[in-house]
Amino acid sequence: MIDKLAIIGVGLMGGSLARALRERNEVGEIVGYGRTIANLDEAIELNVIDHAETSIAAAVDGADMIVLAVPVGAMREVLDAAAPAIGSHAVVTDVGSVKQTVIDAARAALGPRFASFVPGHPIAGTEQSGARAARGNLYEDRRVILTPGPETDPTATGRVTAMWRAVGAEVVSMPAADHDRVLAASSHLPHALAYALVDMLVRLDDHRSIFECAGGGFRDFTRIAASDPVMWRDICLANREPLLALLEQYQENLRLLGEALERADGEWLRETFARAKRAREGLHGPGDGE
Amino acid sequence: MIDKLAIIGVGLMGGSLARALRERNEVGEIVGYGRTIANLDEAIELNVIDHAETSIAAAVDGADMIVLAVPVGAMREVLDAAAPAIGSHAVVTDVGSVKQTVIDAARAALGPRFASFVPGHPIAGTEQSGARAARGNLYEDRRVILTPGPETDPTATGRVTAMWRAVGAEVVSMPAADHDRVLAASSHLPHALAYALVDMLVRLDDHRSIFECAGGGFRDFTRIAASDPVMWRDICLANREPLLALLEQYQENLRLLGEALERADGEWLRETFARAKRAREGLHGPGDGE
Repeated sequence: MIDKLAIIGVGLMGGSLARALRERNEVGEIVGYGRTIANLDEAIELNVIDHAETSIAAAVDGADMIVLAVPVGAMREVLDAAAPAIGSHAVVTDVGSVKQTVIDAARAALGPRFASFVPGHPIAGTEQSGARAARGNLYEDRRVILTPGPETDPTATGRVTAMWRAVGAEVVSMPAADHDRVLAASSHLPHALAYALVDMLVRLDDHRSIFECAGGGFRDFTRIAASDPVMWRDICLANREPLLALLEQYQENLRLLGEALERADGEWLRETFARAKRAREGLHGPGDGE
Repeated sequence: MIDKLAIIGVGLMGGSLARALRERNEVGEIVGYGRTIANLDEAIELNVIDHAETSIAAAVDGADMIVLAVPVGAMREVLDAAAPAIGSHAVVTDVGSVKQTVIDAARAALGPRFASFVPGHPIAGTEQSGARAARGNLYEDRRVILTPGPETDPTATGRVTAMWRAVGAEVVSMPAADHDRVLAASSHLPHALAYALVDMLVRLDDHRSIFECAGGGFRDFTRIAASDPVMWRDICLANREPLLALLEQYQENLRLLGEALERADGEWLRETFARAKRAREGLHGPGDGE
């Protein structure tokens, strides 16, 4: 049970956590902070938060659980503003898609209170954003990765784990560097590739026909290209080394694909496609299948 | 109304058309031909077809509508086998994802009967295959592209148009070369990119973690990598020139993306992602959104 929850950034992720904890009676008071008044007003109206504060310090004051749900590039600024007001019993966590840069920011901003910071990343979300997109079931049966380090207070990790389990998530733990490398592959590269494809197609002369003739495959493939550009700019910058390494490797794979097409090598294509199909079919979960 | 429908290739596409016409009482008898007895038996059991023939000639004999629903690479062989048995009142159409190579095959195989061939491509389907995947509503509100040429008999085009409209599809017409260029962009390139990504990831040391940490975005992005490898090998080979041109252009776009990441150019990333988001949001239709 959380007495006072501070949500810094009341968008899809932060708002859905607030909703989920409220629906399960796991929280007393919920305070929100955000950059835009309109979104905060909407969050209050939709009963996502109880009230809004106009400063981060006021929002975290007295909170026993502080959740940072802002784009990764805004974490340092938010942590600096929050640091002086974080209470001695408070635990701080985040939902950022990249962990090492957020950990570095937290270490620099929080000083001795860094032990109370539990880096986290729920593998959930949609291409939508804002408090209006918040849903109480967003985290049900989803995975939350925590990346506590040797300095992290195990009690803090325990409280963050309990919070996520309370909203139906499965909590796993791994080193931050592993998280960042794995997520570069499973999430950051696919987002970058989808953005690059849609951006290329919209600049073609045929773009009207191309979009008109788009089938379900194209819709699925490019859905993530409707994600928030600022959030994804931040993720790509924060995780650019693992992302660049994978992008290079992918470019090499496309070079091989192009060569196979050039020489009309049907066997290479069939084998590659079949290997991918087998791997993809091993992946089952929410939102999958017809 | 079709008296005798011959479905050559009773998979997702052919089977769904059979089901849809039957459900709407738009067809008398439905005969199926296919390579595997097990699939044909299943098609009969599921009432997708009335009976199966063990030769293409027997299947098309007496049919007034012949639908070729085999992988693009098998079209020539199928057309050659069908040609001598095609009746004088029969119309022939196909559901191939590439049009020019199928048209060339039909011209060579059908000789004087080429005027009765109406090249078609329904923009529908899932990553599933086989008669068991057939659904009577697959074509509802979907687009079917016909690419008749100057030699095509307008009556034949009219009969194929009426068939697709009867199952709820919207029929549009365009030159075959336009179709192939547009579909290379909206469908063939995305499939090739998804196959290449999944194939790359499954060969990484981290592949278990990567697949375990896959969220909804990854599932959407890679769903098409579970499509039939033979069908997609054929499509890639049949349409390799437009596909290669787009693949090259995409590689150039990835080179620019890599450079922007190298120099940590947040503005370039944000602008590119925002342009893609706007374009993607303009795209709405079946299977989209939460």
